[in-house]
Amino acid sequence: MAAKAHEQNVIFRPHFKTHQSAAIGEWFREEGVLAITVSSVSMAKYFAKQGWQDITIAFPVNILEIEEINELASTVDLHLLIESERTANFLKEKLTADCGFFIKIDTGYHRTGIEAQNVLLINKVLQSANSQKLHFKGFLTHSGNAYQAKDRQELTRIQQYASGNLLKLKKHFQPQYPGLILSVGDTPTCSQLPAFNGIDEIRPGNFVFFDVMQFALGSCQLEDIAVALVCPVVSVHLNRMEAVIYGGAVHLSKERALLLPDQESIYGLAIIWDGEKWDTSNLMGKVSSLSQEHGILSLSQTGCNLKPGDLLAILPVHSCLTANLMRRYLTLDGEIIETMNS
Amino acid sequence: MAAKAHEQNVIFRPHFKTHQSAAIGEWFREEGVLAITVSSVSMAKYFAKQGWQDITIAFPVNILEIEEINELASTVDLHLLIESERTANFLKEKLTADCGFFIKIDTGYHRTGIEAQNVLLINKVLQSANSQKLHFKGFLTHSGNAYQAKDRQELTRIQQYASGNLLKLKKHFQPQYPGLILSVGDTPTCSQLPAFNGIDEIRPGNFVFFDVMQFALGSCQLEDIAVALVCPVVSVHLNRMEAVIYGGAVHLSKERALLLPDQESIYGLAIIWDGEKWDTSNLMGKVSSLSQEHGILSLSQTGCNLKPGDLLAILPVHSCLTANLMRRYLTLDGEIIETMNS
Repeated sequence: MAAKAHEQNVIFRPHFKTHQSAAIGEWFREEGVLAITVSSVSMAKYFAKQGWQDITIAFPVNILEIEEINELASTVDLHLLIESERTANFLKEKLTADCGFFIKIDTGYHRTGIEAQNVLLINKVLQSANSQKLHFKGFLTHSGNAYQAKDRQELTRIQQYASGNLLKLKKHFQPQYPGLILSVGDTPTCSQLPAFNGIDEIRPGNFVFFDVMQFALGSCQLEDIAVALVCPVVSVHLNRMEAVIYGGAVHLSKERALLLPDQESIYGLAIIWDGEKWDTSNLMGKVSSLSQEHGILSLSQTGCNLKPGDLLAILPVHSCLTANLMRRYLTLDGEIIETMNS
Repeated sequence: MAAKAHEQNVIFRPHFKTHQSAAIGEWFREEGVLAITVSSVSMAKYFAKQGWQDITIAFPVNILEIEEINELASTVDLHLLIESERTANFLKEKLTADCGFFIKIDTGYHRTGIEAQNVLLINKVLQSANSQKLHFKGFLTHSGNAYQAKDRQELTRIQQYASGNLLKLKKHFQPQYPGLILSVGDTPTCSQLPAFNGIDEIRPGNFVFFDVMQFALGSCQLEDIAVALVCPVVSVHLNRMEAVIYGGAVHLSKERALLLPDQESIYGLAIIWDGEKWDTSNLMGKVSSLSQEHGILSLSQTGCNLKPGDLLAILPVHSCLTANLMRRYLTLDGEIIETMNS
């Protein structure tokens, strides 16, 4: 992803919410990454302590955290997301250190942000944020609707719509704010498509591990998935071709993916684990349901040979949530990697 | 629940997986509770350290944890769940301390356990477990299908089927094992119905807090829900009657409930929080979707007055999973309660 960004001459500001780990952050530094994205003030604090000096908190400002924000802004190059006059006014009044900000734009996902067409509100926010301490950096969007794209054609349309709208805003506001940049970022688009011409920055995160959801979306191959949860089989029910693993909602999370061809809803894919590595060519089953600590596998033919005590590698549906629950990693070399939640 | 169990003369062995907290465990001790249920070996270790001497691990034995099991069995009155000859043989060979066991029976949920009609397999497991160290305690079931009951009539049918099948097993095996007991436990049944005649032990857990799922099932009123996650509003989108809260899948979990009348899928209910308490008569919105850290609320009319910085109490869909993610509690008196994950 670093090479792709470099090639296409866009800033690479990876999202660190997927791994949440200082040590994995260092791997990015080795690739020349200097600027990062996080999803909370506490995550920003954690990575600031690790020496990251250029941090965007890609989440609408929680004004109740103003003290922590001021502390952070006084030590690192901090960028916030603003999308209302109220928050802009609040920051203008309460910020005690210089701080960059992006206006969060809604380009079709409709989770949050100002609708790209609402130039009136964007102008009002810019006026409210008019302060010595607040520095307008540009427009930022997250095309979360890319996760609903049925195929690459639809993904391309989503990218074109989002980026096209951002480019219009750039054209409109550039005379007044000549240095403004456009920032986009979601793993499906950044993995599958080239960066859109005119976009300045990409912020993908999940690609560091990928997962079954990204596989289902066509962002990666199964063998590209770089994390798995190793779980023991505790029971086998051959009459219904099922097994029970010690691995439930408190380990994997209850995120589901819909697998083609029949839109089957699953919570993970189970593959053989030989004690040293996993082998994606050997699918043992699908995680078909989850309770708090139980996982139920629908077994493949090969899976029917499983016995209690056997270990399986479960490829998670959403690696960010599984990593957040498990709180640390074990590498294939036996090294433990801590996270901010360890 | 303790009073109800006492009245109906059944053993009350509450499941501690919901709260996972030593301090909350003490509240049970004050009600005379001496025997508990947990869902993992690590949870058993945690509560054993807190002085609990009679613990059932209501999860099929993970034979890879035999060392920890032996350690536990040497210090507390431990009960395991067995449902295969293989596991019974393994334990017979490897157990170094006395240990009770239940045979896990499947009475219609089809998650795990031996089907109640399969007396042949039950006999084989009992033969395999025939050892000086393994003490057969009885039959245990979890009617997880109670969570699919559409009304009290269906719940009653589920209870009757499960308990009826257990009673048949008791009748069959009592001559050989005169002290055997029957253990059941799920919060919908234990909350809504009297204990079934002939059942010896109940193991509900979730009732300690309840949650939106239990409310949807008719196990409790909204005002009975005893935990909420206080979240700040970070953005309001009045054009679509939505707000964004700082509270996502890593805080609430992605467990969904289907709310009547239109089977609307929600992740929590948002009510007003005045800094001291919540008021269930004042519904501000429903959590309609969740990303990693964002929660999206569908606002009620009253909810449309919300502003960034306002606080909401979110009643969780599944309190066990939310408590597991948040790792500690703050009481209304400002006291912090730790858990095994703190």
